Amino acid sequence: MNLNEEAESYLRTKERGFLATIGKEGPTVIPVCFAYESGKIYSAIDRKPKSGRELARVKNIEKNPRVAFILDTYSDDWRRLSYLLVHGKASLVREPSEEGRAKELLLSKYPQYRWLGLDGSRTIRVTIESLKFWKFQPRG
Amino acid sequence: MNLNEEAESYLRTKERGFLATIGKEGPTVIPVCFAYESGKIYSAIDRKPKSGRELARVKNIEKNPRVAFILDTYSDDWRRLSYLLVHGKASLVREPSEEGRAKELLLSKYPQYRWLGLDGSRTIRVTIESLKFWKFQPRG
Repeated sequence: MNLNEEAESYLRTKERGFLATIGKEGPTVIPVCFAYESGKIYSAIDRKPKSGRELARVKNIEKNPRVAFILDTYSDDWRRLSYLLVHGKASLVREPSEEGRAKELLLSKYPQYRWLGLDGSRTIRVTIESLKFWKFQPRG
Repeated sequence: MNLNEEAESYLRTKERGFLATIGKEGPTVIPVCFAYESGKIYSAIDRKPKSGRELARVKNIEKNPRVAFILDTYSDDWRRLSYLLVHGKASLVREPSEEGRAKELLLSKYPQYRWLGLDGSRTIRVTIESLKFWKFQPRG
């Protein structure tokens, strides 16, 4: 997966994205913190307090791994709008070395994880299959 | 649909949300500007320049009206995180009086539409069926 510079910068610097999955009653979407490396997006089922439906995203990707993930820039000046839309496949990380690396990336990107902790939390990996970078470009 | 105060405030004041729909290859999600009234969320297929896939969301809701819509607050201080997640059914607005009202709401909320214009743009209505407001509340 070759990313252009803008896409790469979005994946490296944005603080939260939105992960859309398909559940048995339709689509759902949730904000997630994430880390990016080598065509993969990692997010943790972390210890932010969850409601009863906390595992909806896990159940959903186990039944249907296809997901969408979006990062954007919003501005009142709409000429500055942009977003990066990713489509890919998601699954729980099962390989301990990959999980360790993902947590390392998350801890390094988010100092907040130093107090919240990532021990015992599972990690979701989204393997990027396609991406689209859009920005507002007024027509001729 | 009775909304609590926080949900109502999110729907009235947030500037853009994310609309998740189901396409033939899986879920997708896109940032949208919107206006809220009486249990309904309106967004315009406006004149922001679109790519070739501009109508994906329209094709998607015509095949499968179930959608998710999310508004959130992100902060580096994770104790201030919150989001409002809506599930509902979407369709294009076909009734001229409803379309007129939706555009009135959008023009009133977004001064940007005064220069971008809403003439000839279609409007998507999401009828809210359920919603969940989440905020970070540290456990005991």
